[in-house]
Amino acid sequence: MTQTQDHTRTRTYAWTDPAAHASLLATTDGLTLLRRMEAGELPPPPIMNLIDIAGMQVEEGSVTFFIDPREFHYNPLGSVHGGVISTLLDSAAACSLHSTLPAGVGYTSLDLTVKFLRTVTVDSGRLACKGSVLQRGRRTALTEARLTDTAGRLVAHATSSCMIFEAPRS
Amino acid sequence: MTQTQDHTRTRTYAWTDPAAHASLLATTDGLTLLRRMEAGELPPPPIMNLIDIAGMQVEEGSVTFFIDPREFHYNPLGSVHGGVISTLLDSAAACSLHSTLPAGVGYTSLDLTVKFLRTVTVDSGRLACKGSVLQRGRRTALTEARLTDTAGRLVAHATSSCMIFEAPRS
Amino acid sequence: MTQTQDHTRTRTYAWTDPAAHASLLATTDGLTLLRRMEAGELPPPPIMNLIDIAGMQVEEGSVTFFIDPREFHYNPLGSVHGGVISTLLDSAAACSLHSTLPAGVGYTSLDLTVKFLRTVTVDSGRLACKGSVLQRGRRTALTEARLTDTAGRLVAHATSSCMIFEAPRS
Amino acid sequence: MTQTQDHTRTRTYAWTDPAAHASLLATTDGLTLLRRMEAGELPPPPIMNLIDIAGMQVEEGSVTFFIDPREFHYNPLGSVHGGVISTLLDSAAACSLHSTLPAGVGYTSLDLTVKFLRTVTVDSGRLACKGSVLQRGRRTALTEARLTDTAGRLVAHATSSCMIFEAPRS
Repeated sequence: MTQTQDHTRTRTYAWTDPAAHASLLATTDGLTLLRRMEAGELPPPPIMNLIDIAGMQVEEGSVTFFIDPREFHYNPLGSVHGGVISTLLDSAAACSLHSTLPAGVGYTSLDLTVKFLRTVTVDSGRLACKGSVLQRGRRTALTEARLTDTAGRLVAHATSSCMIFEAPRS
Repeated sequence: MTQTQDHTRTRTYAWTDPAAHASLLATTDGLTLLRRMEAGELPPPPIMNLIDIAGMQVEEGSVTFFIDPREFHYNPLGSVHGGVISTLLDSAAACSLHSTLPAGVGYTSLDLTVKFLRTVTVDSGRLACKGSVLQRGRRTALTEARLTDTAGRLVAHATSSCMIFEAPRS
Repeated sequence: MTQTQDHTRTRTYAWTDPAAHASLLATTDGLTLLRRMEAGELPPPPIMNLIDIAGMQVEEGSVTFFIDPREFHYNPLGSVHGGVISTLLDSAAACSLHSTLPAGVGYTSLDLTVKFLRTVTVDSGRLACKGSVLQRGRRTALTEARLTDTAGRLVAHATSSCMIFEAPRS
Repeated sequence: MTQTQDHTRTRTYAWTDPAAHASLLATTDGLTLLRRMEAGELPPPPIMNLIDIAGMQVEEGSVTFFIDPREFHYNPLGSVHGGVISTLLDSAAACSLHSTLPAGVGYTSLDLTVKFLRTVTVDSGRLACKGSVLQRGRRTALTEARLTDTAGRLVAHATSSCMIFEAPRS
């Protein structure tokens, strides 16, 4: 990131074409895929580079993402935009479900209900966004995610319903 | 954006420190502020540069954002991440309320309830995300946003409750 | 309803076993079924007797329920309980979808997101709760309902996602 | 409840005018009020008689309601209407917050987001609906409620944001 006297900053970042590894979804279970991503053996999806995720932790049924709030996340009010918070919550919730699915079983988020509880700024320090699976049916699942600050305070909360389906055979 | 043989891409983009114009919030009504942003006289907030908004339209009580889906918005499933969609919906809903507020009256989003209705990819073409104010009380307001594709189909929907308050005097 | 000096009231009401007409669901389209209910040719479901619905209006894609707030709807705070409001919103939203479905196609509500905007008491007068279908996919639909008072003010709002499926063959 | 050959049933039930005890809200803390209700020293609000609550358990920060599904709760599909489930979830969530509030501090539900996970019928047996407080700010609180069946399965889930305010002085 560069800064200039006229308040303009620039940022350059990289990502990897997700199509390069898309075929793994059909042949690898979710937990293995996510653990390989955690270990750096697989690239994260582009959205993670976009918002500049600081790391992730993977357990079966629960995935946590970390982020350091940055000025480039800001809304016009001078705090982290709710969309960045929603991105974290959606990712943690959805990946938590993915970590329980066998190879070849797909899923998609039907909704995301976010509650914004505290303003986040660059002074908030590293945030942790932990997802979990509240209920798992045959066709749907209910997931949850909690965003907390370094003091352990709940900063935002979300629930998300997901649909589960067999991936189309190629 | 550059592309390499090994599927790595890079992107460089710029934004403006939002603190450079923050004092305007206390002295300018929302509609005037948003119209100056629409006209390019004021920089957009950093989040808009982050997700690469293609434009905006401002009316009193309704703000629309446009976006062209890009690979850098993608989730691991090869489509635009729900967080990008949530960012658009949250922005359109909140700015619609802001466009009705006088100078010195602040607001914050309490929640965001998103329904994801259609998968979005780079082939979806330009999307429009139009916000509106459903109800306005003294302390709270209910806002809505609808994301549609070029065929006019509803791609995602959100409601958001906002709290309204007098900005702290400096 | 009877009233006594010791603040106790009693209410006696009737309903019809829904099993008596359940087979109609497989052989009659939703619009016809709901119109027969509106005309009094079919009994309403028990829940409508429970909360004492004052009437309904049926169009294709939009069903409206009417209610007069009553003391027996009250929460401990002395106003109509949010659960009664939720019941109205859920019914109007779900029946609006049902009014678009052919015979033998079932549906179920996956969720209900209610925003409570105004306190309702017995002095609020007759309320109208109008549902509509915002989007209809192959497997899911997004519905909405708006509860308004006699002055046309929005009292509560809801969205509800529904799943659509072929009813099991008997 | 009486049953007739023509599928008509009737039910007679009683409740107490909530105004008879409304003044207690200003002088008694929430936990004491709810415990007196649990002990039968104070009447429940009319809504609890309406849906026929089977009992309640009160702890500081968590209130649980019990219910036996009944035919008079039914929707046209032959299962307990989502509005009854919403009533339970809303009550458990709101009362959980109330149990943490001192005398003279009021609250109101801003919203209710319900996820319906399993169909409930009279064969489901007694359900327990347990509320809890996820976060408590100065002006708002986030509450949750979980409805489970006798097998411990999650039947429905809700979050609810509440606004907290000093009750108006009389």
